[in-house]
Amino acid sequence: MTIMNKSEKIEKALSDLFEAKKSSYPQALFHAMTYMVFSDGKRVRPYLMLLSAEFLGVDADAIMPLAIALELIHTYSLIHDDLPCMDDDDYRRGKPSCHKVFGEAMAVLCGDALLNLAYETMLEAAGNDVNLISAASFIAKCAGVEGMVGGQVLEFSKEKFDENEITEFCMKKTGALIRAAILAPAYLGCDGKKFSALSSYANAVGLNFQLRDDLLDEKKEEKKSYLAVMGKEYTVEISERLDNLAKKALANYDDAKPLIEFSEFLTNRKK
Amino acid sequence: MTIMNKSEKIEKALSDLFEAKKSSYPQALFHAMTYMVFSDGKRVRPYLMLLSAEFLGVDADAIMPLAIALELIHTYSLIHDDLPCMDDDDYRRGKPSCHKVFGEAMAVLCGDALLNLAYETMLEAAGNDVNLISAASFIAKCAGVEGMVGGQVLEFSKEKFDENEITEFCMKKTGALIRAAILAPAYLGCDGKKFSALSSYANAVGLNFQLRDDLLDEKKEEKKSYLAVMGKEYTVEISERLDNLAKKALANYDDAKPLIEFSEFLTNRKK
Repeated sequence: MTIMNKSEKIEKALSDLFEAKKSSYPQALFHAMTYMVFSDGKRVRPYLMLLSAEFLGVDADAIMPLAIALELIHTYSLIHDDLPCMDDDDYRRGKPSCHKVFGEAMAVLCGDALLNLAYETMLEAAGNDVNLISAASFIAKCAGVEGMVGGQVLEFSKEKFDENEITEFCMKKTGALIRAAILAPAYLGCDGKKFSALSSYANAVGLNFQLRDDLLDEKKEEKKSYLAVMGKEYTVEISERLDNLAKKALANYDDAKPLIEFSEFLTNRKK
Repeated sequence: MTIMNKSEKIEKALSDLFEAKKSSYPQALFHAMTYMVFSDGKRVRPYLMLLSAEFLGVDADAIMPLAIALELIHTYSLIHDDLPCMDDDDYRRGKPSCHKVFGEAMAVLCGDALLNLAYETMLEAAGNDVNLISAASFIAKCAGVEGMVGGQVLEFSKEKFDENEITEFCMKKTGALIRAAILAPAYLGCDGKKFSALSSYANAVGLNFQLRDDLLDEKKEEKKSYLAVMGKEYTVEISERLDNLAKKALANYDDAKPLIEFSEFLTNRKK
């Protein structure tokens, strides 16, 4: 028997989900959904959820439906973000964006379909496990207005941002789902002290992830972004500080090495 | 103490939900969401859910979060349906549609926000009640690709429909949420025979609701609709047959009178 690593497990869970839906979904919509879900995404959110689960001693199989649901939520947000009325992006991950290939109407519905499927997946997996329900409930809060959607709205709320505003924007639009990934497994078993440490780690990694994304994407200098508001030098400085904060948050835990390495990898990544 | 009727209870539950969110939501988004949710909607879906709950002896307070979640799901679908890239409707319920008032980007996000809030509301209410989780899981299926979203996609799949195709379109786009409303309470307690009767009732009422909507809206003759495909005379005939089917489905139950009256009201409504 082959032992799959985390990334392989995530890909398999996503493939299995869509394989099970293939015959009952309209073909064109299925095509649009899978075009976007299997488009060379880095799977950062489900991967982080599995890392966090491992750290907490939570069963990876139990949390997996929530991990892939989070990837579906992330994917729907990209599709809607790329729409002409939003960021108007023709490309996503080096391929034509959803609306460029399938048309705007299909892109709106493809996003809606993925969001509904994310919740359907979580609700079905929850069965009679009340801890999974609490974890799914937390993910819903992170995805909605108090989290990611709230961040997306901030983008359209003003022409100019100051440091506090752009930080809030990043913490919500990107940080909220990273936070969901890292903290959702805690609802399946975690003491208060560890939760607090993991929460600090999640906040630091969530913001740093967006800062590094800005630094790796030249176009970000022209858009509403941390980089555009605060400049390159300051962004690099804050990113390094956040990496230190993430490490410090989990410094007392011997088994936090994979999470600490993730923060380092994030800070040093070149693409 | 005043005893509130079903409609008043629904309005209060919706008001309470948004009142609780007011301070934590971005003002512009809150404004867009409430503009659409409190815009003279008939509340057919939550009302039907309460009627069905009463018929089944299910506690109205227990099911209410699911009833209002269904109204939020319905509202998000209207907002996205009205977008220029979809049906391009400037008016909804006699008022300018969401994107006409708040812009397209906000309308996309307002829909996304309502859909997330619907699931957040259901997950939060579910707590440790596994029956509520099953009911919410059923609603998710009705809202997603196997239900409403699948119907919305069908609309863009072809230029011309035959009777089977237009019936499938109506059963999914409209019927699925009506079915969700009527059958969700059954997950909180219902024997198989009653479930089967209620399911037949739900299918008949779901399709009839769309047919009557077509007949009351002159513009429907120009659009992809049952009326446009099948003609007025045949649509009226089928609508009356569906009313009879709905009544027949529940004929053996003495306490089904309010549900039967709803089908009659639906068939005879003038607006």
